[in-house]
Amino acid sequence: MSTPEVNELSYNFQKLRWVKRIITLAAGTIIWHLPVPWDITPDAWQLFTIFITAIIGVLLEAFSIFTASVIALIAVVLLRVLTPEQAYSGFSESFILLILAAFLVAKGVMKSGLGRRIAFLLIRRFGRSTLNLGYCLVVTDTILGPSIPSNTARSGIMYPITHALSLDTGSLPTAEGRKRTGTYLMMTYIAGQTISSALWLTGMAGNPIGVGIAAQFGVNMNFGNWVFVASVPCIVALIAIPFVLYKLFPPESKYTPEAPEMARKGLQEMGPMSTQEWIMGITFMGMILLWAFSSLLNINLAIVAFLGLTILILANVYTIGDIRDGAGDALETYVWFAILYMISTQLNDMGFMKILGAQIATYFSDYNWVTVYILLTILYIVIHYLFVSQTAHLLALYAVFLQVAVNAEVPVALMAFMLSFATNLFAAITPQASSSNILFVGSGFLPSRDIYKQGAVITVLNTVIFLLATPWILWASSL
Amino acid sequence: MSTPEVNELSYNFQKLRWVKRIITLAAGTIIWHLPVPWDITPDAWQLFTIFITAIIGVLLEAFSIFTASVIALIAVVLLRVLTPEQAYSGFSESFILLILAAFLVAKGVMKSGLGRRIAFLLIRRFGRSTLNLGYCLVVTDTILGPSIPSNTARSGIMYPITHALSLDTGSLPTAEGRKRTGTYLMMTYIAGQTISSALWLTGMAGNPIGVGIAAQFGVNMNFGNWVFVASVPCIVALIAIPFVLYKLFPPESKYTPEAPEMARKGLQEMGPMSTQEWIMGITFMGMILLWAFSSLLNINLAIVAFLGLTILILANVYTIGDIRDGAGDALETYVWFAILYMISTQLNDMGFMKILGAQIATYFSDYNWVTVYILLTILYIVIHYLFVSQTAHLLALYAVFLQVAVNAEVPVALMAFMLSFATNLFAAITPQASSSNILFVGSGFLPSRDIYKQGAVITVLNTVIFLLATPWILWASSL
Repeated sequence: MSTPEVNELSYNFQKLRWVKRIITLAAGTIIWHLPVPWDITPDAWQLFTIFITAIIGVLLEAFSIFTASVIALIAVVLLRVLTPEQAYSGFSESFILLILAAFLVAKGVMKSGLGRRIAFLLIRRFGRSTLNLGYCLVVTDTILGPSIPSNTARSGIMYPITHALSLDTGSLPTAEGRKRTGTYLMMTYIAGQTISSALWLTGMAGNPIGVGIAAQFGVNMNFGNWVFVASVPCIVALIAIPFVLYKLFPPESKYTPEAPEMARKGLQEMGPMSTQEWIMGITFMGMILLWAFSSLLNINLAIVAFLGLTILILANVYTIGDIRDGAGDALETYVWFAILYMISTQLNDMGFMKILGAQIATYFSDYNWVTVYILLTILYIVIHYLFVSQTAHLLALYAVFLQVAVNAEVPVALMAFMLSFATNLFAAITPQASSSNILFVGSGFLPSRDIYKQGAVITVLNTVIFLLATPWILWASSL
Repeated sequence: MSTPEVNELSYNFQKLRWVKRIITLAAGTIIWHLPVPWDITPDAWQLFTIFITAIIGVLLEAFSIFTASVIALIAVVLLRVLTPEQAYSGFSESFILLILAAFLVAKGVMKSGLGRRIAFLLIRRFGRSTLNLGYCLVVTDTILGPSIPSNTARSGIMYPITHALSLDTGSLPTAEGRKRTGTYLMMTYIAGQTISSALWLTGMAGNPIGVGIAAQFGVNMNFGNWVFVASVPCIVALIAIPFVLYKLFPPESKYTPEAPEMARKGLQEMGPMSTQEWIMGITFMGMILLWAFSSLLNINLAIVAFLGLTILILANVYTIGDIRDGAGDALETYVWFAILYMISTQLNDMGFMKILGAQIATYFSDYNWVTVYILLTILYIVIHYLFVSQTAHLLALYAVFLQVAVNAEVPVALMAFMLSFATNLFAAITPQASSSNILFVGSGFLPSRDIYKQGAVITVLNTVIFLLATPWILWASSL
């Protein structure tokens, strides 16, 4: 393509972007001035407007998620919706720092060569098809599920491996290069996490909180009955997800019969594990152990990641120089996620989520219990578009929805289990829907818009599978 | 040098580093187990131990300031000295985010070419000698002093210019390259800031707080009498600082009579200002204006920097890609400063600083007032080794020290002005002594150890000049 053409394209792209930016701004202005419904406070409505405008901006690709978030931060402070202290609070959230530190450790895994080695080992065994690799990621995460009860920490383990797999199957984090395998593998992983988190009571940090709330409604959930109730729909979903993504959003590179041989050669060239790889591997195993026993030892998850990072720095596996020259993406991710998380949390604290959920839920009270059950489930899932944390969503709406269900005579155990599962099923609905997505969003392999599109498909798929499994859930939860 | 020799050197360096690391750890262990003096709480003593051990580690060059800080963070949480929430609180501090955003804007100034152009203009006019350029920086900052009352914001303005000046006079942020001009120019700037902040009541954000405390002791300070009292010692110090640094820590490149000619050519090659430079310049001027009127408009300083950053991103002057590929150093700086600031703040909140200051100050009560005045001044300055913020220091110790002075019959106005000035004079004593240093520390031109060494010299120089000016301060403050 000749240069004038490129310039022309780039100019049109820029012009289009400004049109989209003006549309976003106009949408925000209109929402801002709408009459405030129910007893939502004006402050909460303004904050909601800023949040939803930022999301619109990202969806329209008027702004990158970083720019949209920073603009939202500026708006929140300049329009005096929140104090600067409130507006900056996300930056000191423990699990947001976990993501930051895990991001840096992941870079150490890559740099040491260990990520490449693990990727080669997986490709040698499963690399004949990209679909196989997708299943391989999902299964690995599901096996890690019960022992690493933070899905964010789990994504810290699996991200560098997924990243290396993408690179070593010839994908690159560019507009064209990621279509080869990267987007597919990354999306399959975060979609698979919705199920690996739903399958185990200890698969996601918020699950036990739901158990506590359910107990107040007389529902007994424990590790054993949870996995039993979850098993049937989860196994179906685990089988379906990699396949559905593969069919609907196929990776450009599907079959690579030569890949295992290439991986074998790659491993030969790498030779035996280097000192750096050993240090990295032992550090990584130590982190996995500490994460697995973190609640027993009462260790903060982020500190485990900082500890791993420090060992890598002290041992010269990953250096200060590497941070200076190559950790700008970690900063970018950290900033936008801290801001969006803060806005969602503040909206929640202002009662916005609760009022919204309760108001919509009350419309259902006239229907029979099956309809109420289905509508509540769908509503609980769809409303996650507004949330930036699974646990916050659960804390805001689980009890409210469960109460509405009880009033409509939905079997309480069925609804409780369904809401607990749903708290995981929606985790891929937006880039920010779960903190476990964030490393993958920051990779460059998974554009925001793809997550919105493919995440919607996965969420619908999950919802349908679990709703169809209702008879099983009803029966199994009654034992 | 042949490769084996390099390896040998690198090996010895590494071995030496580990010896230093063991010494640091041993020192920390000993301090941890010392009997706790006075009525300091065990928690506060443990936190102090962690802080001072980190500082020892940096001074010995056992660790980089980043690594030392992260280890301190881990120790603070794992040893249960603070909760994770307390330990992470620094990350959401408003002015720490100001530094982060200003760091990114500074990169925009460089990338747009505007930094280079301003540097060339300065070199064309003053570039015959490096000493001249040093004076040029100090004078510029002094002129900005009254209108930009945050020295941190001021450093956000001057950092990109100082950075460009260093690069365009042939310096590089490497162990050898920085000796040419970079270290000298950067150190001269932060040393000069101690005085540009002391000269004006509005030169540093904490100054008006001191005025408020002094008023409770019956001392009237206002913009006019402040600058009058400060004028004589400040002018002497402003003249002395660039010269003393030049003599004691000379830049390798002193006279470059060809520099103005090179700059003229450079400007010719750059041609007229590009669109990017115009956007950058207008944004920058807007930021300066908003900073200058921030208290009038009640605008958060960090938001001004985020606003500037957003404009640059929207206008494609500085892009998300630039952040991803080149902002790792901003992240590094942000992390270590947030941690050290948090520890110092927590130490302060635990009463450690107050007890320490008060206990030492009481030893002076038997001396005559001149001795008490001199000792209090020196002690107030030296104790800043433990602080990571000028304002926190002032809040913790200003009133205590003023009270001790009054008890010993030191003229109260003299002591009040001296403590107010001292709150600025110590700002270059450590890398973290003032938030206005942090951008410069992050530049790569100014190693921590150089700041400790040269900062000590500057602090002694400042102290001597101001103590010698006591008759003037006594007379001028009594008018």
